[in-house]
Amino acid sequence: MIRAGVFGATGYTGYELIRILGRHPAIRLVFATSQSYAGKTLNQVFPQAPALPLVRAEEAALPDVDVVFLCLPHGAAAETAVSALEAGCHVIDLSADFRLHHADTYTHWYNIPHPAPHWLAQAVYGLTEINRPHLSDTRLVANPGCYPTSILLALYPLLKNKVPLAGPIIADSKSGVSGAGRVPKQHTHFVEVADNFSPYNIGRSHRHLPEIEQFIQAYSPQQTIIFSPHLLPVPRGILSTIYVPLANPHTLSTWQELYATCYQHEPFVQVLPAGELATLAHVTHTNQCVISLTLAQNVLILTSAIDNLIKGAAGQAVQNMNVVFGLDETSGLCHGGGV
Amino acid sequence: MIRAGVFGATGYTGYELIRILGRHPAIRLVFATSQSYAGKTLNQVFPQAPALPLVRAEEAALPDVDVVFLCLPHGAAAETAVSALEAGCHVIDLSADFRLHHADTYTHWYNIPHPAPHWLAQAVYGLTEINRPHLSDTRLVANPGCYPTSILLALYPLLKNKVPLAGPIIADSKSGVSGAGRVPKQHTHFVEVADNFSPYNIGRSHRHLPEIEQFIQAYSPQQTIIFSPHLLPVPRGILSTIYVPLANPHTLSTWQELYATCYQHEPFVQVLPAGELATLAHVTHTNQCVISLTLAQNVLILTSAIDNLIKGAAGQAVQNMNVVFGLDETSGLCHGGGV
Amino acid sequence: MIRAGVFGATGYTGYELIRILGRHPAIRLVFATSQSYAGKTLNQVFPQAPALPLVRAEEAALPDVDVVFLCLPHGAAAETAVSALEAGCHVIDLSADFRLHHADTYTHWYNIPHPAPHWLAQAVYGLTEINRPHLSDTRLVANPGCYPTSILLALYPLLKNKVPLAGPIIADSKSGVSGAGRVPKQHTHFVEVADNFSPYNIGRSHRHLPEIEQFIQAYSPQQTIIFSPHLLPVPRGILSTIYVPLANPHTLSTWQELYATCYQHEPFVQVLPAGELATLAHVTHTNQCVISLTLAQNVLILTSAIDNLIKGAAGQAVQNMNVVFGLDETSGLCHGGGV
Amino acid sequence: MIRAGVFGATGYTGYELIRILGRHPAIRLVFATSQSYAGKTLNQVFPQAPALPLVRAEEAALPDVDVVFLCLPHGAAAETAVSALEAGCHVIDLSADFRLHHADTYTHWYNIPHPAPHWLAQAVYGLTEINRPHLSDTRLVANPGCYPTSILLALYPLLKNKVPLAGPIIADSKSGVSGAGRVPKQHTHFVEVADNFSPYNIGRSHRHLPEIEQFIQAYSPQQTIIFSPHLLPVPRGILSTIYVPLANPHTLSTWQELYATCYQHEPFVQVLPAGELATLAHVTHTNQCVISLTLAQNVLILTSAIDNLIKGAAGQAVQNMNVVFGLDETSGLCHGGGV
Repeated sequence: MIRAGVFGATGYTGYELIRILGRHPAIRLVFATSQSYAGKTLNQVFPQAPALPLVRAEEAALPDVDVVFLCLPHGAAAETAVSALEAGCHVIDLSADFRLHHADTYTHWYNIPHPAPHWLAQAVYGLTEINRPHLSDTRLVANPGCYPTSILLALYPLLKNKVPLAGPIIADSKSGVSGAGRVPKQHTHFVEVADNFSPYNIGRSHRHLPEIEQFIQAYSPQQTIIFSPHLLPVPRGILSTIYVPLANPHTLSTWQELYATCYQHEPFVQVLPAGELATLAHVTHTNQCVISLTLAQNVLILTSAIDNLIKGAAGQAVQNMNVVFGLDETSGLCHGGGV
Repeated sequence: MIRAGVFGATGYTGYELIRILGRHPAIRLVFATSQSYAGKTLNQVFPQAPALPLVRAEEAALPDVDVVFLCLPHGAAAETAVSALEAGCHVIDLSADFRLHHADTYTHWYNIPHPAPHWLAQAVYGLTEINRPHLSDTRLVANPGCYPTSILLALYPLLKNKVPLAGPIIADSKSGVSGAGRVPKQHTHFVEVADNFSPYNIGRSHRHLPEIEQFIQAYSPQQTIIFSPHLLPVPRGILSTIYVPLANPHTLSTWQELYATCYQHEPFVQVLPAGELATLAHVTHTNQCVISLTLAQNVLILTSAIDNLIKGAAGQAVQNMNVVFGLDETSGLCHGGGV
Repeated sequence: MIRAGVFGATGYTGYELIRILGRHPAIRLVFATSQSYAGKTLNQVFPQAPALPLVRAEEAALPDVDVVFLCLPHGAAAETAVSALEAGCHVIDLSADFRLHHADTYTHWYNIPHPAPHWLAQAVYGLTEINRPHLSDTRLVANPGCYPTSILLALYPLLKNKVPLAGPIIADSKSGVSGAGRVPKQHTHFVEVADNFSPYNIGRSHRHLPEIEQFIQAYSPQQTIIFSPHLLPVPRGILSTIYVPLANPHTLSTWQELYATCYQHEPFVQVLPAGELATLAHVTHTNQCVISLTLAQNVLILTSAIDNLIKGAAGQAVQNMNVVFGLDETSGLCHGGGV
Repeated sequence: MIRAGVFGATGYTGYELIRILGRHPAIRLVFATSQSYAGKTLNQVFPQAPALPLVRAEEAALPDVDVVFLCLPHGAAAETAVSALEAGCHVIDLSADFRLHHADTYTHWYNIPHPAPHWLAQAVYGLTEINRPHLSDTRLVANPGCYPTSILLALYPLLKNKVPLAGPIIADSKSGVSGAGRVPKQHTHFVEVADNFSPYNIGRSHRHLPEIEQFIQAYSPQQTIIFSPHLLPVPRGILSTIYVPLANPHTLSTWQELYATCYQHEPFVQVLPAGELATLAHVTHTNQCVISLTLAQNVLILTSAIDNLIKGAAGQAVQNMNVVFGLDETSGLCHGGGV
């Protein structure tokens, strides 16, 4: 059995992770931390949770675990990561701390010095389907952001095949409210969200932009993206509608084939047949990313749906851990979908 | 023109009040206060609001107004009420501070000494339909709570006619989330409320219980009530399903007639014909209370629906003000329903 | 492996059943029928479903299965049940056709002659926790209705212990929209349900009333119930708030102990500690029934929550099948909750 | 008083129209038709409606009215329009029948021959802010579609000023469910919509595309648009996020000024200051269109919000009628927003 610890168990991502780990046949959960609820049990926070005791991060016994999952705010995550790495653990970091290659880019977007810049080079960006070969060589996985997961899995077949583009990519993304975290804020109050729909940080101002663009530019250094997130009145799920201006004309069936081929062996990515469109209903409560393609005036319109808490966070974290430890990649993740 | 001031303009009730006053032909709004947003304008808080400047309560010019509406927390409301009364204003208090006749009952339920016990005897409980004659004799109106409004308007025809009952009344009430206020809390976070439904403070433990029972016992001193509030995943509206055990058998049409007669001249209370049931859709965004009757095994089942922010708060406050100042009671309140 | 067939796979209950059977280690699904979608595959109806072929009921190979689940309208279910019983299958009927003992009661409530009155005596009412011993003696299980499950599991400890009551029980129930079926109707249109909350068939007029009362009267022949269903704007879940007038006074802890003892070995019934209240969030997407107790003026207030599609239908159906075939009762049902 | 008739009063648009007309000081409603509910009253369909009698279209007394509003399906609308025009009435047609200039384009998109091609040349496209001068010269107003209203009001300042563009415009639009009509369908069932979000007819396949492009091409004949509608889980409101590739670089403040100037005297179009973004909460239950601007890599991102039933249908219809009859354009429309 692999022994695991979870830091930050009482956010939505931490709880989802504990649900998944609880079903995982090869994992034993050793500790779960919470600064706000230490001393209580998890079911006092989430009514369906098991009666798992919650401890303060300082009490977590790093020597007793093989892997830690960090569901912590940025900054705090990097500090805990260093402690865990120095204690010999594997680290799956669900924060943004190790996603950007350059400490100064991090500082620009997060307004703090990077807490552990010397570890940046060790981190592997855990978009599992793309970086699978590199995951077994590291002890530090930077689990991707939710929006980037939905966008980059949709773009990857084009990037990998060096398909020439004619201008900036546009990603119009819509996310459920759990993406904004569990700490109550005015803009997540039920009355403010219900019957409403709102854009925020659109254009080039959301913190996921550098993460997305860094990945794209590894394939095509000049390519840029415009990214427009919106808040949907649903608890969970992200749907990104992505407009890709193609430089050269091809038929839709060419693109369908390119995508189908690229992902044909992937258990968690599904390319829909032409004429069908991805929706949140395809993916909520699953680790699937479902992608559909539409062609209009030589713009390829990609519709990409994930559950932000699963494929966009806790599910992909477990998927990465499975690869890191050489387990079946779908272990604990109910391949094929379904609650 | 009657000159009005609103204390606590940036809660849901305060904003609803300002919307209504903005349409009222006989009202000029002189000031609106907000401790959190003083210095800003109301449309920076609510996107559809006018650009009304918000001032701190301390800056409110009491001598410049004829009436103040208090949308403040209990305790603070009573203190402001005293200042306003001493400055010669009429006061419509939407808090709980002057609803209970006895200061010690208040202390029992609200855990503070009553801030102005000498004023309690002056206060008139502003269930407009019932206490209309007394409203013109006072400068201090205690505007009823939202749950009590839905329950007491439904019970009043029985109480008034001294219909003998055979046991405790049971009121099973369901309220939209705006009833919990605008300050964000864990239990009003969108993700916690959506797809959920929860009872809270059921039995005899909600603070609206003594308000309800005080009213009932003015007619029938031994009669008690069991009150079970629940949180509905909707922004607004209250539906109370009330079970009244009748001592003597009568046909449904007897009760229908009793209710129809009691409320036949009321612009804001509608008794549905037998066979129809009140729903939130009857009342949201209106000052109406809609009541329906069903008879089962000599239990009279009353279904009573209101908009908690309008008939349950801001609308009834304006209705009371209209009576106090001798205006048309429906002024500003769009008699007959509709957004 | 037990070979199973599902009749009516494309309603919400049928689909939920297929999800559960798909995870069940001892079941092989042989056929799934749908009159509306025969010739298509299940994922063309539900995007997360497997690509299961759908056949017409007439094409279903009864000799190839050990058990059939009937997710059919009343009337049609009984006819199919007879064919399946005659073909030697076990039948788990999720319709109302075999729940009432007397054909004339059935006719009174369903307005048709009972299609198979001679089979009524063979049927066992599948409230698993109560009728577990009888399930192994029958080939015909009448799976309980969703409202009755939530109400009867909450009342059973009182009934079993012959606790004397002082008047009619009142069950104020609230159900998510999936309980109204998948065929689109005016009152299930999104725009009619969202932001609304509506009572329907309250008092003694809902078809689940005779089912509930028949069960109660087996323990206490004169005891009656008033049953008030309401439509909640959520996809799934039932919460029943039940008011039981006790004849004799006891402390809350007496009742807590009675309940805790009654259900202490049950994997799918959880009695909350005093002071906690059952909510939909305790049970959605699980086979759990969660019950809480409050005492007020010698009325015991039971709050009982289930997922209407799982414990209220498909989950309990599988639980019954597990008992019928001598399998682990929790098999396929994720004991302990969680999606 | 202007005498009005409404054809198709029991759809969501027809009902909204009747609410507005009921508040309009210069209108007397003479008849309201409904094929499904003739013989009933409107409050039997919508609980907050007045008890307005509903008649069959064939019984509508055209000679008794000055203007008719057509809330009918395409095809039927054109036939009724002809009768009304021949009877001397003004016609405000809320269907698509007279929006497209060319009968063959109509046939291509709607699959029927145009029922009244000889009237097409008389129709004025009722985007009030743009075509105000032409509205007084016609008896036939083609009221714009809801999506086109949200998109074209946002694009108009660019079109009017002949701003050169560098490629196709992309409009990513999200609409509440009332846009799909009141007739219940599988995809508008509450359970299918709640917690979901779905694209449909994206690219160049939605019937509003030719309406949008015809308007754009009147200013810039080669300019095309890609239009992607999505279904939002809210009852009402449209938010369009529109990406306009600019040929020449300018600062955001240039564009802000262009927009502010263009709409400075418009009562129903509001351009937000730089840094604020339009949301549904700005516009639901109002006749406002709220527009915000963001600039990213020389793409102008317009966010445009309307209430689909009001500015996108019934409200704009009344606004057009006000202009046609020389009334105050805001009459009945609560200038300045608010329920």
